[in-house]
Amino acid sequence: MQTNSSSSDLTFLKIKSDQISQALKNYLPDPKEANRKEITHLFEMEWDYNLRGGKRLRPSLCLLTNQMLGGSDEKALPTACAIELLHNFFLVHDDIEDESELRRGKPALHLLEGIGHAINVGDGLFVYVWQALVENKKILGSSTSFKIMNEFLKQCNLTVEGQAMEIEWVKNHVFDLQESDYFDLVSRKTANYTITTPMRLGAIIAGANSKLLNSIDVPGEKLGAAFQIQDDVLNIIAAEKDYGKEIAGDIYEGKRTLIIIHALRTANEAQRKKIIEILNKPRNQKTKEDVKEVLEIISSTQSAQYSQKIAKKLAEDSKKMLEKRLSSVPNSQAKSDLFSFIDFVVEREY
Amino acid sequence: MQTNSSSSDLTFLKIKSDQISQALKNYLPDPKEANRKEITHLFEMEWDYNLRGGKRLRPSLCLLTNQMLGGSDEKALPTACAIELLHNFFLVHDDIEDESELRRGKPALHLLEGIGHAINVGDGLFVYVWQALVENKKILGSSTSFKIMNEFLKQCNLTVEGQAMEIEWVKNHVFDLQESDYFDLVSRKTANYTITTPMRLGAIIAGANSKLLNSIDVPGEKLGAAFQIQDDVLNIIAAEKDYGKEIAGDIYEGKRTLIIIHALRTANEAQRKKIIEILNKPRNQKTKEDVKEVLEIISSTQSAQYSQKIAKKLAEDSKKMLEKRLSSVPNSQAKSDLFSFIDFVVEREY
Repeated sequence: MQTNSSSSDLTFLKIKSDQISQALKNYLPDPKEANRKEITHLFEMEWDYNLRGGKRLRPSLCLLTNQMLGGSDEKALPTACAIELLHNFFLVHDDIEDESELRRGKPALHLLEGIGHAINVGDGLFVYVWQALVENKKILGSSTSFKIMNEFLKQCNLTVEGQAMEIEWVKNHVFDLQESDYFDLVSRKTANYTITTPMRLGAIIAGANSKLLNSIDVPGEKLGAAFQIQDDVLNIIAAEKDYGKEIAGDIYEGKRTLIIIHALRTANEAQRKKIIEILNKPRNQKTKEDVKEVLEIISSTQSAQYSQKIAKKLAEDSKKMLEKRLSSVPNSQAKSDLFSFIDFVVEREY
Repeated sequence: MQTNSSSSDLTFLKIKSDQISQALKNYLPDPKEANRKEITHLFEMEWDYNLRGGKRLRPSLCLLTNQMLGGSDEKALPTACAIELLHNFFLVHDDIEDESELRRGKPALHLLEGIGHAINVGDGLFVYVWQALVENKKILGSSTSFKIMNEFLKQCNLTVEGQAMEIEWVKNHVFDLQESDYFDLVSRKTANYTITTPMRLGAIIAGANSKLLNSIDVPGEKLGAAFQIQDDVLNIIAAEKDYGKEIAGDIYEGKRTLIIIHALRTANEAQRKKIIEILNKPRNQKTKEDVKEVLEIISSTQSAQYSQKIAKKLAEDSKKMLEKRLSSVPNSQAKSDLFSFIDFVVEREY
């Protein structure tokens, strides 16, 4: 079967990623062209996260979906750039909100430049998102451009809501959470953002009908949840490999992951109290020993393994649904790559 | 002459402000309709600054310009709401960036809810701005809606640039500034934002031709600068009246106002060193005595008086230019109100 390609064949990701890096130059101003040194510095800061690389998964998924449905990269690239700019805008702000210290191997922007600059840089990137979407009119016409803007609006509202939930849980020491709370969070914060919206946008640009468009939503949601769970799992597994490094960021940040919710449910009372006590500490008061202790409890409850099983199941379900729902779409390299991408979501180790 | 109305007649501001308060309900979600308590809280936080009132000058100016040029409020209200939402978005973020403590008589949002929530709430408000602008299509059609979005983009880029300049000056202890630097800042940070863009938007919605539209730019720039200088002056004068209250926020925040630039230029060497020493202190290390000392130097150099003179001259120039450039616009209550507004900019005491 054509869609059953190997997950290791991800050359398309590299190719798309390079295309996007190149096209971003059309949407981020050149620091050399600023007319004051303060503005040069602003533009450099705006470039920072965009230049740190990252996998560029979301815009690649948009290009891939568009290509699979017969669209051209040329028409989809501005929207793909808007997706990447939006991602980097949210990352800059999220890093402040979550008190993250590292981003793509370097200190978070607010640690390099101060919180004031970082907030402002995020705002600047969000303006560029809309600049790209408004400029879409030239190549896609008014009607499609408005459809795309509406997708962005829907998704941005969900992302802000998800972020509010997560901040509230940490701030108010909320621990009485069910798995359904986690999936509600992930639906808003990750699934639309990472999978459903990029795919829908690619489909819109390719001129897909609304039936096909809406058929993406459920498998997109499942794959998005699988993606987030795998992210959480990698955060823990990497930490288990080397306790010495401060890499269990989710524990330092007090994130309520599926792993933590499972551990709280299945651990004994003493362990449960310990997890809550440590997660409730302000970030700068958490010691390496604290984090190690939480990791040991998680290890004893097999919560990462439990979560990864769920992620795999979700990805499988998503794949099956998409195979069926996209059965009328002609086979192509892009279609095959899309299914490789699905495998990658839960098989990746980075 | 019809346009020479009394500046005290500002009932129109109250009327427009009430209209905008009412219309904002269409663009901010009702907390009661949220499906989770965390989202209820998000919506409440998003309403907060919008409910604290403020003068709603910017959207009123848009409505007034539109009305003067024959447009209907109904068509301009969504854009006016977008202007107000944008303002409140920027205020929420600016209060964090400037370490402001008070906003409209209450603690700044980040002091009430934490920096994380405040950043996210600002982002949420910025999404609603674009939601209003995208929905404009229904009542204004595609072409005008795109024109309006382009005005917002131009202005948002300038605001972010102005903000970057101001943050950089405080962060890097920059004091070798000329008046031209201040006017460059104000052009980006205030003039477009407060005067030129709201007026241009009102004109676009009224269907003004590009000649009339562009004729707003120079007097708008002058009036905007006058507005900012008057703001700076009020901040200092209020403080001079009562040293006991922490109201000289600009000095606590280390702002490089025209007043400070004039004082640095005209004070003696010892005074100059003192201003720089105190302004360079982190906000939480500045004492009331520090602020009092800076105010005394400013008083001895007559820098507030100097600045206010410049503001008055700018407002007069702006008024004369607008009287000439709008001479073909029929006399009306709205036109008369617009000129009352100009007088108000430099005569206001709040």
